[in-house]
Amino acid sequence: MLKKNDVNICTPIVGRTIDEVKEELRTIVPKEPDLLEWRADNFRNLADTEQVLAVLETIGDVKKDIPLLFTIRDQNEGGESLDIDSSHKIDLIERVAANSHVSLIDFEVKQSEEDLHRVKEAAVANNKQLILSYHDFSSTPSKEEMMSTLEAAKTKGADYAKLSVTPETKQDVLSLLTVTEEAERTLGIPVITMAMGGLGTVTRMFGWYFGSIVTFAVGGHPSAPGQIPIEDLEKTIAHIRKYQ
Amino acid sequence: MLKKNDVNICTPIVGRTIDEVKEELRTIVPKEPDLLEWRADNFRNLADTEQVLAVLETIGDVKKDIPLLFTIRDQNEGGESLDIDSSHKIDLIERVAANSHVSLIDFEVKQSEEDLHRVKEAAVANNKQLILSYHDFSSTPSKEEMMSTLEAAKTKGADYAKLSVTPETKQDVLSLLTVTEEAERTLGIPVITMAMGGLGTVTRMFGWYFGSIVTFAVGGHPSAPGQIPIEDLEKTIAHIRKYQ
Repeated sequence: MLKKNDVNICTPIVGRTIDEVKEELRTIVPKEPDLLEWRADNFRNLADTEQVLAVLETIGDVKKDIPLLFTIRDQNEGGESLDIDSSHKIDLIERVAANSHVSLIDFEVKQSEEDLHRVKEAAVANNKQLILSYHDFSSTPSKEEMMSTLEAAKTKGADYAKLSVTPETKQDVLSLLTVTEEAERTLGIPVITMAMGGLGTVTRMFGWYFGSIVTFAVGGHPSAPGQIPIEDLEKTIAHIRKYQ
Repeated sequence: MLKKNDVNICTPIVGRTIDEVKEELRTIVPKEPDLLEWRADNFRNLADTEQVLAVLETIGDVKKDIPLLFTIRDQNEGGESLDIDSSHKIDLIERVAANSHVSLIDFEVKQSEEDLHRVKEAAVANNKQLILSYHDFSSTPSKEEMMSTLEAAKTKGADYAKLSVTPETKQDVLSLLTVTEEAERTLGIPVITMAMGGLGTVTRMFGWYFGSIVTFAVGGHPSAPGQIPIEDLEKTIAHIRKYQ
């Protein structure tokens, strides 16, 4: 569903209401990202499963053949605060996984073994791909820690291992790229990595060169610090690619 | 003479005759690089000092206020074969260093202590800046070796330390960038680094972000593998810079 051995530009949808989601889709879909992520933690009526499924229909109606990634980002890793508990959240993910418009599910690798197991089962049962992710909004772990986080994602059943960190120095930016390159060679599953914030924006532009197969860009509104507009990202990637 | 803490785009001049140099200048100067390098090892009449000085006048007449770097690249490090011996070469560099159109001199850090001493004296006496350089056209040395080459350049009196290597893997590309970032923080003189060839072209595009203050681009003809046209390099840098 994602292009292999190539960069996929993913644009997040962060609307709080179905109308906001519709408005974002009008802006984003014509820009033809490779992947759409619905960051459902932003959705105000997440507690109402029927409304969640209605949003998926809305997205499905207009997204054409762009694959859809469904994410309820945990508040500990940069998501919005939720009015549903963890058990309700997993029930919801199970329902969403069964929806035909959804191709991929993102879940945090640090979640409980039980929840990870249920989400993995739901993905497998519905033939959906699973991204297990880790986000650090304050710092960049050591290279060893970053690599073991990616390895944990693989061990826990990820189809893709995602790592998003916050650099405090350019050394941190290079650590993230170095881990990306190593994981791309050795991990056995594709990786999705980025360094957030202004210092890390360069990784959104050329992290793919070192092995990250997804980069997040702004179609309507950003979902994390350092994301740039899809139009500019596409131009930058095209320039870099021209001389490979 | 070079912009500090910023990227300088350098365009080489590689003409074999004064007419070829003139033709290159007509193409290059309107593109307004930050630095011009005359790669005089390409010049057929290098043995004739008056002709060399005549070329400098020709360049000086049209280059406007673009600083000029003078380089006779050694054949061991990617230069053309010369019909002058080492002693003649140093005599020539001394003459060139006294020329008012020349702002910087490049010389290989691996040259003999005596030759390095004479070139350094000539630079100091004429208030010219000195780049001491190392080029590896077959591989990428270890990070430790690359760092000690840059340190040697500083010890031997360089104003700028230049390191150009050939990556065999993307790990090599990241090693070069990692050394660049470290040297930028710790060396005490500015560094000029690049990974050559197609695999390393990305370092010509964003090595400046990690501390390399010069990147070489094609104005007329390339002087090393992996150089890209100045117009495309400028666009790529502008895109990256927009989001810093």
